[in-house]
Amino acid sequence: MSAHPHATTVFLSASDVIRLVRQHGLPACIAGVAQRIERDFRRWPLFVKSARIASHSETGVIELMPIADASEFSFKYVNGHPGNTRSGLPTVMAFGVLADVATGAPRFLSELTLTTAIRTAAMSALAASRLARPGGTRMALIGNGAQSEFQALAFRDLAGVRELRLFDIDPRATAKLMSNLQGEGLVLRPCASAGEAVHGADIVTTVTADKACATILTPAMIEAGMHINAVGGDSPGKTELHPDVLRAAAVFVEFEPQSRIEGDLQQMPADFAVTEFWQVLAGAHPGRASAAQVTVFDSVGFALEDYSALTFLRDTALALGIGERIDLVGGVPDPKNLFGALRGPATNVAGSPRQASRPATPAALAREPLAG
Amino acid sequence: MSAHPHATTVFLSASDVIRLVRQHGLPACIAGVAQRIERDFRRWPLFVKSARIASHSETGVIELMPIADASEFSFKYVNGHPGNTRSGLPTVMAFGVLADVATGAPRFLSELTLTTAIRTAAMSALAASRLARPGGTRMALIGNGAQSEFQALAFRDLAGVRELRLFDIDPRATAKLMSNLQGEGLVLRPCASAGEAVHGADIVTTVTADKACATILTPAMIEAGMHINAVGGDSPGKTELHPDVLRAAAVFVEFEPQSRIEGDLQQMPADFAVTEFWQVLAGAHPGRASAAQVTVFDSVGFALEDYSALTFLRDTALALGIGERIDLVGGVPDPKNLFGALRGPATNVAGSPRQASRPATPAALAREPLAG
Repeated sequence: MSAHPHATTVFLSASDVIRLVRQHGLPACIAGVAQRIERDFRRWPLFVKSARIASHSETGVIELMPIADASEFSFKYVNGHPGNTRSGLPTVMAFGVLADVATGAPRFLSELTLTTAIRTAAMSALAASRLARPGGTRMALIGNGAQSEFQALAFRDLAGVRELRLFDIDPRATAKLMSNLQGEGLVLRPCASAGEAVHGADIVTTVTADKACATILTPAMIEAGMHINAVGGDSPGKTELHPDVLRAAAVFVEFEPQSRIEGDLQQMPADFAVTEFWQVLAGAHPGRASAAQVTVFDSVGFALEDYSALTFLRDTALALGIGERIDLVGGVPDPKNLFGALRGPATNVAGSPRQASRPATPAALAREPLAG
Repeated sequence: MSAHPHATTVFLSASDVIRLVRQHGLPACIAGVAQRIERDFRRWPLFVKSARIASHSETGVIELMPIADASEFSFKYVNGHPGNTRSGLPTVMAFGVLADVATGAPRFLSELTLTTAIRTAAMSALAASRLARPGGTRMALIGNGAQSEFQALAFRDLAGVRELRLFDIDPRATAKLMSNLQGEGLVLRPCASAGEAVHGADIVTTVTADKACATILTPAMIEAGMHINAVGGDSPGKTELHPDVLRAAAVFVEFEPQSRIEGDLQQMPADFAVTEFWQVLAGAHPGRASAAQVTVFDSVGFALEDYSALTFLRDTALALGIGERIDLVGGVPDPKNLFGALRGPATNVAGSPRQASRPATPAALAREPLAG
């Protein structure tokens, strides 16, 4: 154990998270994150919340998403750049941090690129499990990109979906999804249009990536009793639903102030009524009013979901012995004497003298294994 | 070189930064950061600025400080917890990130705990070099804690200070400072009170840590022509100057909207006139009006200073071969197929198959040396 354990940070790299998900199993990870989200949304009033801070450019957006309760502060860094795949980069890349509110020490740093897909799917399926008509098994999945398989498995496990009706403007995306989901117990039906996919569906998930005011779903496509899970309309200027679809539905959101700016809700007047979904989980709102009502979960992704995912990752990594300690913010022998750390023998994070004759290998000096 | 170089991030640990400062030299680091700050403040209008996002608790504050120009986005995570030293933790701990605006890829992650002390001192001394009367050599240094030696050396090298008059409510802090600064070419005079330290000084630096509305400097202590560098009053409820000290002076700030909330300026009415310091550097404001005028730099620390420091660290680390690449956000072989990364052979960040028989050593898999 370090002499300054408080100043060390556990780091979970992207490779570590892939190992964690393989060892724990993707369905168990989705279910585990959904359980954390449900638990944390039930104690919603205990969190200090704010809309994320977005820095927009011509090619995309970079966001910081902070949230805190009385004991933990977390934030996520995440970008959205639809053109990235042309140069071999993911559209969305993310990492996040958990810190102690009492001391400000950052305790845990993790990749959240893969994890963002898992937590978004877990959030979507959790909402559908409370808002969709009971017994529905057929889901239209519009947009078959990087997040689509995670949505499919989450809805299979948490919302009873058995059949997927697939559409993407790029048929290769649909082919990739069908290849990835072979053997997962889902009936997969590619469709020639969004309308064909939506027709007869119990649940409609839209998870498209273009940064544009698109109209993936029009009023004519909507049938009584449908639940619409609108994932892709998640930043200013990026929508998926015709405003009349929202007008004819009961609309649920994560955090209203953020959804008014970023969600499909951005198209609606400020007094258009919506319900924050945590109220349904907490029993303060009944959710769907009737079997014929159309419900919309206008999802944009909220910081609390990332907090939930980060605590899941931290606890699971600890249980599996994955990850390592890094020297992110420093631990000096005497915190009142920062200057002194530059004098005398060099110290590593544990405050022990560095061997003067040791070759310079910053990796070895900066870290100690988590499970060591 | 990695097959996915864009998705890798260079990491500079706290130990790495100590090495970097030792190799490059602390005075050269302070001067280098000051040069970057001056360069970046001169192009102030090109940055997208916002007040930092602060999460306050009973014991302290955690802040995120983002800023961006057309090509780079940066943010700093930083806390301020005055009680931390009682449990062996620094009062201030920090790290920061530089990312590409064009793709959102985080390129550089570094400790900023030590660096925050360097950049704060560089900013203070840069401001004094433009605002203090020419020829002044005597500085009162009130608050002799973790940041004080950095202020002392910065003012020696950038503002012509030769004599320090020292005061701290804790005499051990002053003794520590005097021990640390032996042989640095500064005359060091411990004083029995703040008043004694300030009397006859050309420059007065206050860098105290208590989170309280303190009055370190009162009007009776101020002499004509003094320059006051107020560093410690930097968050809501944390001030150092009597409001009449501000009333009788020309007050300069970094970013006015943030200083109105966090600086000593928080005590003043909203229409109290201040000047953003970048205007002095850019030649749009003359600075000090006369030899007798009292000038105040009401410093709170602004995101642009951290951006400047991060670019200095990145370039210096590259030149010295310090730091390493980490797999922070992941690089999957096919960014459109995130799900596929969970199937088939495990890949590291370079996209090459992991050897199945290799023991699980996440550290080895997640990284490649920067200089390797």
